[in-house]
Amino acid sequence: MESKTDALDTSIGKPLVAADQNGQNAVEDFVDPWNVHTSSMKGVDYDKLINKFGCSAIDDSLIERFKRVAKVEEVHPLLRRGVFFSHRDLHVILDCVEKGQKFYLYTGRGPSSDAMHLGHLIPFLFTKWLQEVFDVPLIIQITDDEKYYWKSLSLEKVKEMAVENIKDIIAMDFHPDKTFIFRNLEYMGQSVGFQETLARIQKLVTVSKIRGQFGFSDSDCMGKYSFPFNQAVPSFSSAFPQIFKGKTNVPCLIPCGIDQDPYFRMTRDVAPRLKFLKPALVHSKFFPALQGANSKMSASDPNSAIFLTDTHEEIKEKINKYAYSGDRDTVKEHQEKGGDCSVDIAFQYLTYFEENDEELEKIRQNYSSGEMFSGQIKEILIKKLTRVVLDHQTKKKSITEDI
Amino acid sequence: MESKTDALDTSIGKPLVAADQNGQNAVEDFVDPWNVHTSSMKGVDYDKLINKFGCSAIDDSLIERFKRVAKVEEVHPLLRRGVFFSHRDLHVILDCVEKGQKFYLYTGRGPSSDAMHLGHLIPFLFTKWLQEVFDVPLIIQITDDEKYYWKSLSLEKVKEMAVENIKDIIAMDFHPDKTFIFRNLEYMGQSVGFQETLARIQKLVTVSKIRGQFGFSDSDCMGKYSFPFNQAVPSFSSAFPQIFKGKTNVPCLIPCGIDQDPYFRMTRDVAPRLKFLKPALVHSKFFPALQGANSKMSASDPNSAIFLTDTHEEIKEKINKYAYSGDRDTVKEHQEKGGDCSVDIAFQYLTYFEENDEELEKIRQNYSSGEMFSGQIKEILIKKLTRVVLDHQTKKKSITEDI
Repeated sequence: MESKTDALDTSIGKPLVAADQNGQNAVEDFVDPWNVHTSSMKGVDYDKLINKFGCSAIDDSLIERFKRVAKVEEVHPLLRRGVFFSHRDLHVILDCVEKGQKFYLYTGRGPSSDAMHLGHLIPFLFTKWLQEVFDVPLIIQITDDEKYYWKSLSLEKVKEMAVENIKDIIAMDFHPDKTFIFRNLEYMGQSVGFQETLARIQKLVTVSKIRGQFGFSDSDCMGKYSFPFNQAVPSFSSAFPQIFKGKTNVPCLIPCGIDQDPYFRMTRDVAPRLKFLKPALVHSKFFPALQGANSKMSASDPNSAIFLTDTHEEIKEKINKYAYSGDRDTVKEHQEKGGDCSVDIAFQYLTYFEENDEELEKIRQNYSSGEMFSGQIKEILIKKLTRVVLDHQTKKKSITEDI
Repeated sequence: MESKTDALDTSIGKPLVAADQNGQNAVEDFVDPWNVHTSSMKGVDYDKLINKFGCSAIDDSLIERFKRVAKVEEVHPLLRRGVFFSHRDLHVILDCVEKGQKFYLYTGRGPSSDAMHLGHLIPFLFTKWLQEVFDVPLIIQITDDEKYYWKSLSLEKVKEMAVENIKDIIAMDFHPDKTFIFRNLEYMGQSVGFQETLARIQKLVTVSKIRGQFGFSDSDCMGKYSFPFNQAVPSFSSAFPQIFKGKTNVPCLIPCGIDQDPYFRMTRDVAPRLKFLKPALVHSKFFPALQGANSKMSASDPNSAIFLTDTHEEIKEKINKYAYSGDRDTVKEHQEKGGDCSVDIAFQYLTYFEENDEELEKIRQNYSSGEMFSGQIKEILIKKLTRVVLDHQTKKKSITEDI
C-alpha cells in the first residue's frame, strides 16, 4: 500500500495551501496514495490533513478509553507519541470489544523494491501490537497488482518482490495461526469470496467516482482503475470465507498510512449500500527520509533510507552522513538556543524506535537545551537501529520459501 | 455473450445509414453487443456490417479450402447456408490444421433468463460440429458477471440462471473430456492463470479505448468497464494452464454472433503487444424473432421466441399465431407472385433446423412459386422444432447438479 517512491503525479481535489505572512501562497502540502509533498522540514501539516480528509484526531480521551477497553496499562509508543494520530470509527471497534464481539485487522504493503526500509515496518509494528492486545485475525494484502500497473515491471518481477517482502513480514513474528498474508494476483485467482465481493463493489461504484477520488485520466490503463477495488475488498469479511466461515459482517480495523485514506473513503461510502459494515481506520504519519521530512525515501536512492538489508557499517555511514541535523549553525548558537527536535532526523527516528519514554524524554531535554548535539543522538540511533535491523535479518534468514 | 434483450442503449461509432430512393436517410441498422436494430424485415444488412467492422466474408473458396483441410465432404448447414457468414483469420486456423498444430475453440453465453431459446443454440450447434471435425478442446464461458453488472439482479439470481444454462449446454453433448464450461464469477476466483492474463491485458488497454469501443460513459459502473476484459481473457491459452499445460500460444478460434466482434477487436489489438496470438473468429447472423427479423427476441416476451422449455402445444401456438408470414395479401396474388422466403420466419427457421438440403430446396421452390403457403411451412417447422426441443428436454433431465 505504501509507495511514496512512485514518480506518477496524480491529484485528489485541491492541494493544501497556506498563506504566508506576506499574503502569498506558501509552498503546498500534497498527499495522495502515490505522492507526498511538503516544503516544511517538520513534515506535512497533519491538522490540516485531518480537516481536508474529514477524519478525526486521536485525542487523549480516546487513548484513555482505548486503555480501559483493551485492559492495557499503556498504549503502544507509536500511538501515545502521536505517530498514529488520526482515525475513523475507532470507537466503533472499541464498542465491539466491550460487547465481546470479535473484529479483524487488515493492513498491507505494495512491494516497491526487493528490500523494505524502516518506514515500511511502522504499520506492521503497531498492527502486531494490536493483534496481541485484542487476539484477533490479521489480513495482510501484498499489492503486487498495484506495482504491476504503475511500474514498468513484469509480472514475474513483481511476484519476486512480493515474495521477498512477505518474508520480511513473516520475520516480524505475527501470530502464525491468526495471520493471513496474500499477494493480490494470486489470491484473487484462488477465492470466489474475493471475486464476489469485488463484483458487488464494482457494480455500485461509477467510473467518474474513481476518476474523481484518485485523479485518474482517460489515458490511464484499466489496471489502475481496477486497483482501488482490489484494495477495498479485504475490508469486508466476505472476501475471506475460509477465515470467517461465511460471516459477512465481521468488523474490520485498518491501520495504514494517512495517504491510503482515499481507498477507504471509497470503501466506506459503498459499504452501507452493500449492507456491509464500514471499516474503521487508524492513520499513521509519514516516516521521514534521512534527508528530512520534506524529502522522500526512495528505493532508487539507497541513501534516503535505512533498509532492512543494510549492514551496521551502512547504517552508521548513512546516519552520520545523511541524517538531517537540528543543530544550530554554530556551537555557541546551539548552546544558547538548543537543538531543534522537530527537524532533527536522528531524534525523529528515535521517537519510532526508542521504546523507553524516559530515555527519549531525557534526550529531548538535553538536545533542546543545547547540551547535546545531533552527533550524539546519531550514535544512540545507530546502536538502536543496528540491533533492530540485525535482529530482523536473523529472523528472516530462518524463513524458507514454503510459506 | 448474446444478450439482445437488454434495454441498455449504448453506441459504437456511427450507425449504418443507407439513403433511400428519395435521397432521404432510411432507418438505420445498429449492432453492438447489447443492441441490434434494423427496420428491414430481411434483417440486418450484413454486407454493410462486414465493411463497418472490417472483417471478411466467408466465400466459396474459403469453404472449399475448409473442406479440403478438415477432410469433410460437406460443411455444416449453418456454414454452407451462410448463417456463419464472416470471419477473421479463419485461414490462419486452417494453416495450423494443415501443419498438424492443435488449436482450441472458445464460445460463450450470457445467462439472460432461466430458459435458453432456439437462437441461443445456434453458436453451440456449429461449435459442436467444429469440435467433432477437428477433435479439439472447447472452452465455454458463462458471463454471469455481465448479467450482474447490466441487470438489476442479485449475485444469487445470476448464478442460478448460469447453472440452468450450463445444464442446457451440457445437454448438447459436447465431448465431455474436451469441454470446459465455467461461470466467470466462479472461475475468476479459481484460476491464477486467468487473473494473470487479465492483469496483462488491463495493463495495456486504456480507459479511453474501452469507452470508445463499447460506448460506455462516466456514469457507468466499474463492473461494466471490467467486463470486456473478462470476455477477452479466454482468447488466450494462458488463462487455462490446467488444460494447456502452461502453453501460452495455442491458437484460438471463436464462433460467436457478429455483435460480439467488438470484444475481440479489442482482444486482437492487444494480442501482439502481449506476444500472444490473435484469436480467429467466425461470426453468425442473428436468429430472427418470431415476429420477424426486424424485431427482438426477448425473455420478457415469451411469444417472441421458442424456448427450450416450451411444450409441443406452446410451440404450435407460437408458430401458428406469431411467426411472421411471407404470404402475399390475397391467395390470387400469392399464387401469381409466390411467397417471400426472405421474410417468412417459418422458412427462415427451417434454414437453421432442416438439415436436408434437398428438402429445404423443395420447400423454397414450392413456396417461391406460390404453390405452398406459409401455413404449410409452419406445419413442417412445428414438427421439426417439437422434436428438437423435446429431445433437448429429455437429455437435460438426465443432467444432475454435480457438474
